[in-house]
Parts: sequence; C-alpha cells; structure tokens
Amino acid sequence: MLLGSIEAGGTKFVCAVGNNDYQIVDSEIIKTTTPDETLTKTINFFKKFKDLAALSIASFGPIEVRKQSSKFGYITDTPKEGWSNVNFLGTIKKSLDVPIYWTTDVNGSVYGEYINLAKHDVNLNSMVYYTIGTGVGAGIIINGQFVGDMGHPELGHIKLKRHPDDQNFAGICPYHGDCLEGLVAGPTFEARLNKKGKDVPLDNHVWDIMAYYVAQAALQATLAFRPSKLIFGGGVVSETFLNKVRAEFENLLNGYINIDNIDDYIAIPSIVDNGSATYGNFALADELLKKV
Amino acid sequence: MLLGSIEAGGTKFVCAVGNNDYQIVDSEIIKTTTPDETLTKTINFFKKFKDLAALSIASFGPIEVRKQSSKFGYITDTPKEGWSNVNFLGTIKKSLDVPIYWTTDVNGSVYGEYINLAKHDVNLNSMVYYTIGTGVGAGIIINGQFVGDMGHPELGHIKLKRHPDDQNFAGICPYHGDCLEGLVAGPTFEARLNKKGKDVPLDNHVWDIMAYYVAQAALQATLAFRPSKLIFGGGVVSETFLNKVRAEFENLLNGYINIDNIDDYIAIPSIVDNGSATYGNFALADELLKKV
Repeated sequence: MLLGSIEAGGTKFVCAVGNNDYQIVDSEIIKTTTPDETLTKTINFFKKFKDLAALSIASFGPIEVRKQSSKFGYITDTPKEGWSNVNFLGTIKKSLDVPIYWTTDVNGSVYGEYINLAKHDVNLNSMVYYTIGTGVGAGIIINGQFVGDMGHPELGHIKLKRHPDDQNFAGICPYHGDCLEGLVAGPTFEARLNKKGKDVPLDNHVWDIMAYYVAQAALQATLAFRPSKLIFGGGVVSETFLNKVRAEFENLLNGYINIDNIDDYIAIPSIVDNGSATYGNFALADELLKKV
Repeated sequence: MLLGSIEAGGTKFVCAVGNNDYQIVDSEIIKTTTPDETLTKTINFFKKFKDLAALSIASFGPIEVRKQSSKFGYITDTPKEGWSNVNFLGTIKKSLDVPIYWTTDVNGSVYGEYINLAKHDVNLNSMVYYTIGTGVGAGIIINGQFVGDMGHPELGHIKLKRHPDDQNFAGICPYHGDCLEGLVAGPTFEARLNKKGKDVPLDNHVWDIMAYYVAQAALQATLAFRPSKLIFGGGVVSETFLNKVRAEFENLLNGYINIDNIDDYIAIPSIVDNGSATYGNFALADELLKKV
C-alpha cells in the first residue's frame, strides 16, 4: 500500500509516494506552469503506482476548505496567474480513484511536524507553523485539529507595531501594504535594499527589524493559541535569525507568560529538507484511509 | 435540580443558581474584598440550595487551567491585591460537594453566547468574545472547544500598529505599555483625557483611535481563527462604537476575506444585562453533569 502527497506551491509541485512508515518511495518535482499542464503531469506521476491507496494535497492558496461550499477543493482568488478559480481537487479526483484529503500547504507542514514531534511528546496537541518565504502563512493545530471554520487562517496578514528604524517602508503586500507578509516576506529584501535576502549578511540591521516583526507574530500566536510549540520554516528563516527572534520575543512578552524553554518553544522544523508537508500529507492520507 | 454559576470579577462576584433551561432562579452579588471573605460569602450563598447539582466558575485571572498542573484551579500572578496564588477551586471544592467546572471569565462569556446563538444556527461552531472594560481579554471557541493548551489565551496583550494621531501615548499596561489593553482598556480615557470614558462623547476623536485598535484586534482574530462570529462586550463597547470598529475593520481587511454580513459578524452580546457568563456557566455545569 502506498500513500500519496502533493505539496503544491506557486513555483513547484512536490509529488511523492510513501510507505506505511511515511518514508518516501518515489518522488518527482513538477514546475508550476499552467493548471492544465501541471495537473496533468501530477496525475501521470501518481498513475504509475497501482498500489496508491490514498492521497493528500497541501496547496498554495487561498483555497476553499469549507466542505459545504460549491467551490470546495478550488484555488480561489490567487495572485498566481492562471490559477484563480481552478478546481484542483475535482481535476485530480476525476483521474485518481482514491480517497483524497484537501488542505493548505501550511496545514500540511504543521501536520507533518505535529505527527513527527508527537511521537516523542505525548502532551503535544497544539502547534503553530509559520512559513516565511515568498509569502507568509501559518498552519495551526489546536486539540489535534486544524483551526479554520469559515476558511483557513491567514496569519500572514496581521498588522504590527512598526520598528522605530522602519517607519517609512510602505511594505509590499498588494492588499495591506505593511502587514506581516508586507514587512518580512523574502521579496522585502529587494524592496528595502535592492538585494536578494541570501546576499544580505545576518549582521545587517534589517535582520533586527525583521526579527522584531517576526517576534510580534510569535507573540500573537502565543497569546492567541497558547500552543505547545511554534515552528518557523521557509527561505528567510535560519537558526541565527531565530536567535534574534527569540530575544525580541522575550523582550516583548516581558515575563507575562512563562515559557519553559525558549529554544525549544520557537524552533526550526524537525523534518529536514523541507519535508514537513510531504510527511504531513502521508499522515493525512493514512488517517483518511482509516476513516473510509 | 439546580445549576450554579460564579462569575468572579475583580470588583464583584456574580453568584447564581439556575434551572434546566438555564434560567436564573436566585442570585447574589458579592463584593470582591479579601479571598477569605469573598469565597466564604460565595460558599454560603450556594449552601442554601440543597438541589445544587453542579457548578461552574468563570474567574478573572490569570488562572491555571492546565489539569496536569499542581496549581490547577488557582488564580496565579494577578495585579489584584491579595489574590495572587489563591486556590480558588480547591477552597470551593472543600465546602461544596458537587462537580465543579473551572475556566476564565471570558470563556464563560463566550460559551454562553455560543450556546445561546447555536440554538438558532446549526453551523456555528467557532466564536471569539472580547471584553473591553477595566482590562481586555478574549475567550475563544474552535470546533466547539475552548482554545488554550499551555494556558488560556491572553489576546489583550497583542501589539498593534499605532494610529497616526496617537503616536505619543505610552499606553497603560504595566507589562507591555502599548499592547491592546494598554491602548483601549477603560482606564485609558483617564490617561489620555483625564476624564471617565462615560463622559467622553462618541464624536470625540479618541473613539476613532480606539476603533482603529479594536478593529485590528478583530482583524487578527479573523485571520487567526476564521471564526463564525466576533462578539464585543464590556463597559467600553456600544453599538455606536462598534459601527466605527466595523468601518475600520473593512478598511484594514481590504476585501482580502469575504465577510457575508459585517453587522452580524462583529456584534454586541446576544444575552442582555451582562448575562453571557452566567448562561455559559449554567451550560458548562450542565455538561459536566452529563459527563460524570
């Protein structure tokens, strides 16, 4: 029996099949071009596996996750050209006759981290996973379940207290200007410094400004959800950067809530090589199979 | 059979017993003085009712809600003099031999509103209830359950984007200065204008500033939880004020998420006379009874 995973991003689709232990058996990376071409290639990858028993899709968005909606399974209004109002789940379902789970990319990631870490921590039943890359988003698990009743969370678009040395930067979010995504997503480096983030040394002051904002995101998630753990992934994040975030977070929190171990509480993903979403998808597909 | 409710506030305790329909049969308001005196009077009120079957306490805080903690049932580090490290639940339990539910004041309120509104809306299974009064706090229900794994939420202490006309106000939160509570709690009127809030007409610009901040709280709750409904209660809130909040909220959200009916989405409590917490307590006591 094989479990399938589609981690659908705006740049690439990571397709994989895995075994009962959620270990990858085969995988393929498909460039995100048109919906037609990309979804056809995706379907062809999975058709090779006669033993495919279930599949989970963790997609970029925004997507429709409300089961009662007629657009359930669609990518809705996305800035990604050609992909708005695309019936992603329906297209896959027509060609692959297995149970299919449908959720956001960040939900796939948070679920992978949750399942992986809960193996060694029986008390873990809540977690927030932020990705800070081209965009900013978060997946949230409370009491073992995803959060999001009227849709999925959009924690990338919260407002923040501005850093005193960053009052004049307008932010790059086309909807909100200086929301979290508008202030810390990867492309803000080009907007602020006219350089790629990877070319900006970690002692540049812009990283302190970024850390101040990301620490506010960590603070808000802490005060809103009181989760067991916050995980930060995505291209902008490194352990050195998270050290700055931890320091700002403790400064902002000012002892109001007791955090036992800050290095453990605010952490990079436990699954290496951006594998959290694939692992999460395997687990979600597996659980779907147990239900049907 | 009677159900008991303690809404324990920093100023007064509202004690009540209710019937199966969650209607109040008798009640008493007890001034919050010392823990000894207040809890003794509280116990004496409930001792009068031989038919008391279960009780729920919705308390001011911070409180310990983690069942595995040795301090479960305690008020922890509260600014309220004399009430830090008080074994509230344990003291009540010693004198009243019924099942007792223990939660925060705002959880009591959100539960009351949730149960009351769900009677007429089968799809309602998430809600955020903010109280804006002497302090600011929020109770949150997701998938029918309270949020808060490592403790209860503290949404009063998030950071916000400052209003351009309010850059120099330091805020009044002793822990965080200009967090939400520090910027919009009732006593900020004295701090900003040297007047009580009730004496500040609703066309004073300070209400626009307040609305800008409360709208950010609404925005954050929306993006974090995607709830069916946001309710705002507490002494600072009026329907006129909420109209300002709704306008600022729509401005900040900028159409990013579709909200069907803003007047229904952001609303004052459905239960009149500050009765949400008592109603919620009756429901929580009733459910506790069904479990034991």
